[in-house]
Amino acid sequence: MVLQDRARATLEAIIGGAASVFAAQGYSNASLAQVSAAAGVTKGALYFHFKSKEDLARAVIDEQRRIVRTGGEEILARDRPALAKMVLMCRMYGRQLVNEPVVKAGIRLTLEASAFSDPVPQPYEDWIAVMQALAERGKQEGHIGPGVDPDDLAGFIVASFTGVQMVSDVLTGRKDVIQRIEEMWAFLLAGIVHEDFQMGADFLPGLVPAAA
Amino acid sequence: MVLQDRARATLEAIIGGAASVFAAQGYSNASLAQVSAAAGVTKGALYFHFKSKEDLARAVIDEQRRIVRTGGEEILARDRPALAKMVLMCRMYGRQLVNEPVVKAGIRLTLEASAFSDPVPQPYEDWIAVMQALAERGKQEGHIGPGVDPDDLAGFIVASFTGVQMVSDVLTGRKDVIQRIEEMWAFLLAGIVHEDFQMGADFLPGLVPAAA
Repeated sequence: MVLQDRARATLEAIIGGAASVFAAQGYSNASLAQVSAAAGVTKGALYFHFKSKEDLARAVIDEQRRIVRTGGEEILARDRPALAKMVLMCRMYGRQLVNEPVVKAGIRLTLEASAFSDPVPQPYEDWIAVMQALAERGKQEGHIGPGVDPDDLAGFIVASFTGVQMVSDVLTGRKDVIQRIEEMWAFLLAGIVHEDFQMGADFLPGLVPAAA
Repeated sequence: MVLQDRARATLEAIIGGAASVFAAQGYSNASLAQVSAAAGVTKGALYFHFKSKEDLARAVIDEQRRIVRTGGEEILARDRPALAKMVLMCRMYGRQLVNEPVVKAGIRLTLEASAFSDPVPQPYEDWIAVMQALAERGKQEGHIGPGVDPDDLAGFIVASFTGVQMVSDVLTGRKDVIQRIEEMWAFLLAGIVHEDFQMGADFLPGLVPAAA
């Protein structure tokens, strides 16, 4: 038991160290020597758990997806309207991009793989499917207008979120990503909210459709 | 004169060859041997014009920016409302991303540099500035509502366009990018068009705000 706990602690330290190295350097510049130094473990311990840099990158991406999925499931389980959940998921993901080294590293690794060798559609498809179901529900709940196509909306939310965090990264190192996510939702809401629905301040604090 | 023409033709062939190699392989996998083969020029001719792969990548990015800028200036010079020009610029850029190897290669090289080593904010800032000026003018012309902040709108258009073309690339190899750009504008228009402005079919063919 004690040995197992120690192995798990080592594994966590390695993934944390790998995340900080991948987030800062990207995949191709990262070295296993840097990871073992950042994790505070010997190279022997590192090689015991991971055979290659690619193994390590996959473990970081898996851990990122686990963190994002856990946060998403927690929001989906709340007693809230679907439209509010859509906004809350984007806010959560935005905060994780700023605060969670594993999420930062995971998105960088996914973007690297997507843009430069092997497209990785799964994370986008997963997220589009969740948003599509919520948009459908938001229409049923009378918050999203009947003319809005849930597929188109889900695709546009995921695409624009992807661009918002990316442009924020290039222009400010993601310092303004939370603010930009709020602006994104202000524009979206102005176009999609049902004309009969008056969104009060209690719907979701901080949420205001932009006035045209 | 004849010699000068031949030098110019060689230069164009090299940049075209470099664009096709960079677009397909990315910067780090591309080699000068592949470029000389794709361009149909000897390595000697290639080295006469370019000292390194980095030189070649810069030349492709410069040529991409020239193509995009030329197209943008042509649209800005038209006798059209500013809001129509904003849409036309996004459509033009979308078509160039599909049809122009130099633009395809240039955006890939810019994304690689942005995401993985040295952020390249200039192209984003240039484009945000143009959109900001057009949004301001669109408000004066009574097409964009008075409550819309031109800075926020310009930032969101550039960010969402960036994400739209990127997600389209990952999911369909940009096969649906033109359709996604139209969807993006349908959502944007639904939120930003002045409430007193009835956008007729003559405003811009194909342009319809999404109904909420």
